[in-house]
Amino acid sequence: MAVYTHLGAEEMSALIARFDVGTLVSAKGIAEGVSNSNWLLETTGSDGRGARFILTMYEFRIELEDLPYFLSLLDHLAARGCPVPRTIHDREGNLYVMRPAQNAGSGGEKALALIEYLPGVSVSKPTAGQARAVGAELARLHLAAADFRATRANGMGVAEWQRLAAACGPDGLARINPELAQIVASELPRLAAEWPAALPTGVIHADLFPDNVLMLGDKVTGLIDFYFACNDIIAYDLAVTHVAWCFDQHDVFRPDVSEALIEGYESVRPLSAEERAALPLLGQGAAMRFAMSRAWDWLNTPTDALVTPKDPMGPARRLGFYKANPGIFA
Amino acid sequence: MAVYTHLGAEEMSALIARFDVGTLVSAKGIAEGVSNSNWLLETTGSDGRGARFILTMYEFRIELEDLPYFLSLLDHLAARGCPVPRTIHDREGNLYVMRPAQNAGSGGEKALALIEYLPGVSVSKPTAGQARAVGAELARLHLAAADFRATRANGMGVAEWQRLAAACGPDGLARINPELAQIVASELPRLAAEWPAALPTGVIHADLFPDNVLMLGDKVTGLIDFYFACNDIIAYDLAVTHVAWCFDQHDVFRPDVSEALIEGYESVRPLSAEERAALPLLGQGAAMRFAMSRAWDWLNTPTDALVTPKDPMGPARRLGFYKANPGIFA
Repeated sequence: MAVYTHLGAEEMSALIARFDVGTLVSAKGIAEGVSNSNWLLETTGSDGRGARFILTMYEFRIELEDLPYFLSLLDHLAARGCPVPRTIHDREGNLYVMRPAQNAGSGGEKALALIEYLPGVSVSKPTAGQARAVGAELARLHLAAADFRATRANGMGVAEWQRLAAACGPDGLARINPELAQIVASELPRLAAEWPAALPTGVIHADLFPDNVLMLGDKVTGLIDFYFACNDIIAYDLAVTHVAWCFDQHDVFRPDVSEALIEGYESVRPLSAEERAALPLLGQGAAMRFAMSRAWDWLNTPTDALVTPKDPMGPARRLGFYKANPGIFA
Repeated sequence: MAVYTHLGAEEMSALIARFDVGTLVSAKGIAEGVSNSNWLLETTGSDGRGARFILTMYEFRIELEDLPYFLSLLDHLAARGCPVPRTIHDREGNLYVMRPAQNAGSGGEKALALIEYLPGVSVSKPTAGQARAVGAELARLHLAAADFRATRANGMGVAEWQRLAAACGPDGLARINPELAQIVASELPRLAAEWPAALPTGVIHADLFPDNVLMLGDKVTGLIDFYFACNDIIAYDLAVTHVAWCFDQHDVFRPDVSEALIEGYESVRPLSAEERAALPLLGQGAAMRFAMSRAWDWLNTPTDALVTPKDPMGPARRLGFYKANPGIFA
């Protein structure tokens, strides 16, 4: 979580002039995002009454061809009342602008998007009431996205877990934790073989950790960071959210939070019998997905990096819990 | 520039409740400060109309006994119309609060202060008009602080340059750049021997780089980061500001900016003949101060640190310029 690129006030002002948002009043680099730099901007606003925005510079990982999917999805969902930040289009209607290569130094040309600022804070220890609200908003997102036309494959699907596991290698995984190597050896082939093929698909957020939800009390004020959004099994998104919300920091399951999350979801979009039956497997898959991406980051993050890699053992333990306790979703 | 400590929304809310500022609406970790973590907070405000603040957690370097000096200086200057952020006192009137040790993990107890948020952006390439405004504000600060009662010795004075130079050692300095070792060997003893003893002293900011000045156009909206403030030679503060503002990124002197800075300063507080005559030496000293602190950081910053050390050769070259061109201050 860092700001990777220095944008001077002069260059920032010139960038902002490409949008109808008034002139720059304040710009603070914010410590969010692992593959992009973000600034919280204040401007005089297009109406002179002041406005705030998040300016994002895409630094790594993001493929430029995916940006229109992410950014137009925000517009689509916001227009349907979902609490997601709108994309501010530039004066020519573009979803993002390019930073001229001559300003970018060795980093080359980079894309920047301006999005709406939303209030709210990210909780660390969700209550059942908060989980219920998040479940309901996730279901609303799934319904609101039903008529979103663009599609994007899930770049973090089963094939990618397998690729990451192979890239880490059994020795690499064992170096992190011998248990991790065993879990991957025994569970990954099974998950790949049993992965559901016939469940309803649609647009999913695919990364709805508490960090990516802004709340005020029990109210969801923002769903943010859509840079893993894609088209995939809808119930898998609930499983990802379950892995992310329903365990404490010691990976102990929190049954009240789990019940509330699913209740909240079903209050808006009831699960089919097939979806519900698949949740234990989907939960294991979601846990495997984060275990594998974290394992790769763990082995490949330079020691002088600005980000601290997360421990893959957390999701790995949660995977074991789902396998041993399928009844929690019954 | 980073956020060193994770403060969850729940703990942040509890901290904020100790101040009469309403409830938390938003909190973004901001990438400012090298020895503290900072968050830009939005609250409902004590009057329910919304308010913004900077929350600072002191992580390193700052001695707790110095905090009242820094924080009450802000109050003193703000009350006299200087564009500095006021310190928000807690409900019991304290200038700062302590984070309970049980929440702080291995880091132990830490002090936090809440200060006013000010608009404005930091310029990268100051214009003469901006330097003139900064000079005038610096002089106003010096006058406004004349009746500030507390005192604090300059921890980054001549004795500290000598200590840092010795701690780096000639070999360490030469490892950074052979020229740096030569400059220190020849200039530091001379500066120490010739350092003025009889110039007027008072409260100085001592670190007024463009990063520490918020501006809107040619107007100074904020002087920030007073954590090097101390009592020392007043004209030395102008010399520090001169080193920081009057050279371009390639260390080339900018005569128009220099003239404007000094003109702006003297429009509020004319220099005495003695002060003016001392400026070439004070400028060399200011350059030596930053060369030495940067040299030490350069040699002692772990490669996995969240901060990138700055090149000590910039100030070292500026020192050479001052020595060769005393006439720029005539």
